[in-house]
Amino acid sequence: MVFIISVENWYAEIITIGNEVLSGRVINTNASHVARRLISLGYSIRRITVVMDEIEEIVSAFREAINRKPRLIISTGGLGPTYDDKTSEGLAKALNRELELNMVAYNMILEKYSRLNIEITEERKKMAMMPKGAIAVENNAGIAPGILVEQEGVIILATPGVPREMEDVLENFIKKYLKVKPNVKYIEASFTLGGVMESTIAPYVKRLVKKYDLYIKTHPKGQELANPILEIQVAGSSTNENEIKEKVQKAIEELKQIGKQLGGTILQSQ
Amino acid sequence: MVFIISVENWYAEIITIGNEVLSGRVINTNASHVARRLISLGYSIRRITVVMDEIEEIVSAFREAINRKPRLIISTGGLGPTYDDKTSEGLAKALNRELELNMVAYNMILEKYSRLNIEITEERKKMAMMPKGAIAVENNAGIAPGILVEQEGVIILATPGVPREMEDVLENFIKKYLKVKPNVKYIEASFTLGGVMESTIAPYVKRLVKKYDLYIKTHPKGQELANPILEIQVAGSSTNENEIKEKVQKAIEELKQIGKQLGGTILQSQ
Repeated sequence: MVFIISVENWYAEIITIGNEVLSGRVINTNASHVARRLISLGYSIRRITVVMDEIEEIVSAFREAINRKPRLIISTGGLGPTYDDKTSEGLAKALNRELELNMVAYNMILEKYSRLNIEITEERKKMAMMPKGAIAVENNAGIAPGILVEQEGVIILATPGVPREMEDVLENFIKKYLKVKPNVKYIEASFTLGGVMESTIAPYVKRLVKKYDLYIKTHPKGQELANPILEIQVAGSSTNENEIKEKVQKAIEELKQIGKQLGGTILQSQ
Repeated sequence: MVFIISVENWYAEIITIGNEVLSGRVINTNASHVARRLISLGYSIRRITVVMDEIEEIVSAFREAINRKPRLIISTGGLGPTYDDKTSEGLAKALNRELELNMVAYNMILEKYSRLNIEITEERKKMAMMPKGAIAVENNAGIAPGILVEQEGVIILATPGVPREMEDVLENFIKKYLKVKPNVKYIEASFTLGGVMESTIAPYVKRLVKKYDLYIKTHPKGQELANPILEIQVAGSSTNENEIKEKVQKAIEELKQIGKQLGGTILQSQ
């Protein structure tokens, strides 16, 4: 009960933008990932809204969410270079801000393309168009940066729709910008495992997520077949610091054991 | 383009009620199922909203959806016997209608329990409490009936959250009550396959759903291990009657072929 009271002002909302989710062709695993990650930080998810790739729908979804005054709104989808990627434009309109070329975002994009000797077209430049005052959040798994803005005390992060890009932008946001954390103790630990493929350990991870009710994520750092290296991250929060520390530690130990049983080596532990 | 214009007034919305989806512990496959099924009938899905098991959240979700004036709102979850099943109460409040004992629903429930010699408690009776004027929709896969109401020209169906119960209530609603269909041609065909387990044919069905972009669903009628019998249903719609007829027929033929290759027998075809 104390737990519920202490986090009740720490609501987050998730907005999924994409016709492919509305049509049922794609199951909304992005929303589940964001939910689990935010819950591991002590947030509660109040609402998930899925809307079409249409400006007016995106504007409504953001405005309605902002009016409900959550601490945090995370959107996924609609940040790419094509005509039907409309999140940035919709977000700017929802905030009554101009859409402008964000120079930080532009440089991030420019660097990625120029490294591959690919020229910048209008479509590619479009990924650097952001609402005035936005912060570009690095995307190490793709091109389009995340868009971070604050309005009326609500923090809004727009992430791409491709799952590994969404995950990367979300992690970068949490590490660099998410200063407002609930009054619960957040514990994170990780270790690096060599010699075990991500697909091999996946079913064990799935089981442990259920067992511990923690956020557990494998981040591939090597090559799945030739040289598999995984960073394995475990995170969770609670008002009881000792309890959560112990739980995360137990999960880490069990994951290390599993890694070794699968023929792997613990390369690094923090 | 003609297709888009012809269905633009045939919007549906989906409301998912349940903390387990908001927390990311359960992925929202219910919404995807409802979306695919409605799209096969020619509807477009305009929005999916996931809210908590809280009266005020449920009331808001229904009221906001009704105000957007879709043809159809389908909700999933929150119809069970426990204290945290609040959909019926929330729906009644959203509609400004009294919550009353629905005698048709009560008889449905009574019959199911009395068949098993189980007495009716207040918790069980709760599943027959519906907004005034509601129609109880038969649930052949469980206890709690679906709730069907109309308000301001919007048809609202509340279904249970257990996937096979949700699917059953949705099918019963479509067959018996969904008279308002879009001006596209809807084609449905099915056959009965004996001797193939549902889990065996599942990956083939998944592939064909992608290949044909149709609604394909296996309904188990026998026993998975001892005597597997599957009714296989294929459905879709289009403004082009010949095109959709041909597509459904092709999918049925391919499914029959696969069934035979997997050692099955075609028992019935319609």
